[in-house]
Amino acid sequence: MPRIVEVRQNILKRNDEVARALRNRFREAGVFVVSVVSSPGSGKTMFLEKTLTRLRERYRVAALVGDLATDNDAVRLARSNAPVKQITTGTLCHLEATMVENALAEWKLADLDYLFIENVGNLVCPSSYDLGENLRVVLLSVTEGEDKPLKYPTIFNSADVAVITKMDLAAAVEFDVEMARKNIEAVRPGMKVISVSAKSGEGMDEWLELLGSAAAGGK
Amino acid sequence: MPRIVEVRQNILKRNDEVARALRNRFREAGVFVVSVVSSPGSGKTMFLEKTLTRLRERYRVAALVGDLATDNDAVRLARSNAPVKQITTGTLCHLEATMVENALAEWKLADLDYLFIENVGNLVCPSSYDLGENLRVVLLSVTEGEDKPLKYPTIFNSADVAVITKMDLAAAVEFDVEMARKNIEAVRPGMKVISVSAKSGEGMDEWLELLGSAAAGGK
Repeated sequence: MPRIVEVRQNILKRNDEVARALRNRFREAGVFVVSVVSSPGSGKTMFLEKTLTRLRERYRVAALVGDLATDNDAVRLARSNAPVKQITTGTLCHLEATMVENALAEWKLADLDYLFIENVGNLVCPSSYDLGENLRVVLLSVTEGEDKPLKYPTIFNSADVAVITKMDLAAAVEFDVEMARKNIEAVRPGMKVISVSAKSGEGMDEWLELLGSAAAGGK
Repeated sequence: MPRIVEVRQNILKRNDEVARALRNRFREAGVFVVSVVSSPGSGKTMFLEKTLTRLRERYRVAALVGDLATDNDAVRLARSNAPVKQITTGTLCHLEATMVENALAEWKLADLDYLFIENVGNLVCPSSYDLGENLRVVLLSVTEGEDKPLKYPTIFNSADVAVITKMDLAAAVEFDVEMARKNIEAVRPGMKVISVSAKSGEGMDEWLELLGSAAAGGK
């Protein structure tokens, strides 16, 4: 089907242009932008809520949240008291750079230190769409099983950091952390991997340190 | 973007034609076809493995398994001793009717009572693609949270039955079954919902009964 391939390439090309412009704006405004991808129910929102709450003690933070329908996640993230905006995508299984651009229209980027973008819960669609972010984080919850990196290599290849979530449930689901790390390493050699439980707080210090270093280097 | 919409409609139209032909073949061969959709890690494979193992005592069963990469799930399902074939979709986040048609080329459908099709783990992409199945089942695991039906209404609307999986973990993740059922009812009034644990066996009798009634009515 050469025609659909061509149309898709045009969409991706246009997306890359908008993403590049966004990246320039982010740099000029001095805001460090982190996007989060994962399958539905991997704990993105809880992870971000805890991250926002911790960062707000010292930094100016905000978040955009993508979902097909509902503003449930925006409501949850707003509990961190950070400014939050919902993007509903209808039937689209990923965010695109123009959606981010539009959502930011009323915000003054220079007033922010960190901006988080929670993508639609999907392990396939978001991988091809650059959002202009500085750091892309892929979440993998222990309840999904150790082999997800092997089954969804593209999303792991498009991300900079992997975070294994819901570690408090690891024993109950007999999750093999070493096997999961080995599978991530097989798909993306050298990828940084952190294991956390947003519920118990395990690993969150390590995550915030990584974020701080990345922001210090990335600005 | 009228052009991409048009191309997509052509693809869906073509898919519907192939699916219709498949459905006719399935009816003529007397095989009852069940497809399973869910997000990655919802327990599709374990659920199907237990289903195949139980059904094999009395029926001739087989399965097709879709994934972007790896044949891990086919290997797991083969432990049921049922014939299993893997379909790898590359970067496509759903199965299409032609993939099912091609995968079945070497199988004699008249030799089967039940055929199961495990779709790619995705709560968005598979909803628009008819595979000629008699029954479409959407799985929702307790670790994903109660609000998934509200966030992914289309996949619930495209399915006939909802199965809540991993009930053995419900207490550990404080899953509210009544809330989940209420949310499914809100999205798809009257939808049949079953709660199971493939691990403990809870609810599997009810599921197999439902399957038997559907097959008796659908053939």
